[in-house]
Amino acid sequence: MTTHDNWFIEHFQPTGSAIGFRITGKLDEVQSPFQKIEIYDSTDWGKLMVIDGAMMLTTKDNFFYHEMISHPVLFTHPAPRRVVIIGGGDCGTLREVLKHPGVESATQCDIDEQVTRMAEKYFPELCESNGDARAELLFDDGVAYMANCAPGSVDVVIVDSTDPVGPAEGLFNKAFFESCFRALKDDGLLVQQSESPLALLDLIKDMRAEMGKAGFQSFKTLPFPQPCYPTGWWSVTVASKQAGFGFGFRQEDAAAKPFDTLYYTAPLHTGVLVSPPFVAKALGE
Amino acid sequence: MTTHDNWFIEHFQPTGSAIGFRITGKLDEVQSPFQKIEIYDSTDWGKLMVIDGAMMLTTKDNFFYHEMISHPVLFTHPAPRRVVIIGGGDCGTLREVLKHPGVESATQCDIDEQVTRMAEKYFPELCESNGDARAELLFDDGVAYMANCAPGSVDVVIVDSTDPVGPAEGLFNKAFFESCFRALKDDGLLVQQSESPLALLDLIKDMRAEMGKAGFQSFKTLPFPQPCYPTGWWSVTVASKQAGFGFGFRQEDAAAKPFDTLYYTAPLHTGVLVSPPFVAKALGE
Repeated sequence: MTTHDNWFIEHFQPTGSAIGFRITGKLDEVQSPFQKIEIYDSTDWGKLMVIDGAMMLTTKDNFFYHEMISHPVLFTHPAPRRVVIIGGGDCGTLREVLKHPGVESATQCDIDEQVTRMAEKYFPELCESNGDARAELLFDDGVAYMANCAPGSVDVVIVDSTDPVGPAEGLFNKAFFESCFRALKDDGLLVQQSESPLALLDLIKDMRAEMGKAGFQSFKTLPFPQPCYPTGWWSVTVASKQAGFGFGFRQEDAAAKPFDTLYYTAPLHTGVLVSPPFVAKALGE
Repeated sequence: MTTHDNWFIEHFQPTGSAIGFRITGKLDEVQSPFQKIEIYDSTDWGKLMVIDGAMMLTTKDNFFYHEMISHPVLFTHPAPRRVVIIGGGDCGTLREVLKHPGVESATQCDIDEQVTRMAEKYFPELCESNGDARAELLFDDGVAYMANCAPGSVDVVIVDSTDPVGPAEGLFNKAFFESCFRALKDDGLLVQQSESPLALLDLIKDMRAEMGKAGFQSFKTLPFPQPCYPTGWWSVTVASKQAGFGFGFRQEDAAAKPFDTLYYTAPLHTGVLVSPPFVAKALGE
């Protein structure tokens, strides 16, 4: 990354592409036991959170990611009551999950408390549901948390992690997915951020293969815009225990949702269920 | 723009954001009477075409734009036979248009012949339909071309232009849109690239206002990913002469299209017809 001339630029080697923002200065920096967290202010994108040099979120555009990792999977599950979020320390996913009135409890388990402390200070809007009686915030190892979950106790697991290097590396392999599989009920769903569907399809294939080794039977990768991530186009991958699961969703509930969104709509959800042809081909769908 | 350390970075001032690619070198450069055209090679994105410092297209990701400026509007029109492309000198839009067997003639009018010459050399796959008997390539002023079109002679006008500065500035105002309106049949459609629906909504509003002053009655802005453009999320805006036009499309024809696409599908088309809530709000839909 470079920050000369008032531009923060992230050079992302795996995709050979870069994303950047015009900044006005650095507001904060902390070295946690796990990673370096920096906060910048920008001219057009609000605050930026950067972890170990990688852009995590901006005030302006984080809604794409937080809505798309939450609402599609929650409207796909028939009646999600118990939700676990692994990672997600900025609390934006937790906020979206708790918009669903049927959710009875949502546990967020991020290894790094400093991410949440920085979010509370610089992205307070993402933390506005942290005090909800249904929310539980843990700062612990997500791999261990999932391994210790009671079997068949969870409806939806959301893996809202950083890239598969550093602290999040253990969230992309068979052992972790086996814990998720065991913790989920028979109709439970796993969803994980799955990087760029344009430039990192091999990563998505590998992730699906690991999920498959852990017992998951059906997969669906949903793309969406995410300007602050490499290539500007990102994805989540949903996995079901059931063979031949169609990923149809509760369209009427989604159309009549009792909360606002900025990006997610029921028609959009229908549209992304059919993968773009080049993605379908690469993933062997 | 900067090209140090083997990265081409475009700093786009209007959005306060930057996009870049890892390059291996500059392949060519020409100063035409209208603009400076550069060609780079890259590690992951194939060739890059840059005009006056602004990224125009890459080998890897241009299919998003070329498909989305062509297929939605052509499947919305009941029977497009006569198509005019203003700009579009890289010929990628022309190639997509000519995939529609019902199209009887497609005229591409770009002011700068050098763009097409560079495309022929470095993006030959985009030019593979230039020899089609239905294709006409003109190198002339698009504003004058539209002004001189016979009234009611055209089914679809596609404005595939650069940003509204420099040579393309005249393609974003009432006078030009009046020419398009007059040239189009009663059920004719105009489509124009309309920049980022995240960061440049004011530009889209202004464009719609100018189209409205020229007589167009109904508008629909369709978003799509475009990694090499600022914010990675782009749009086209379709305009109809008819009040209350719903922008429904020939779904069965789209689903049974006799050609391949990489991104466009009929379900995707359905999904993007409903604007994301924040876009709908900003555009007063």
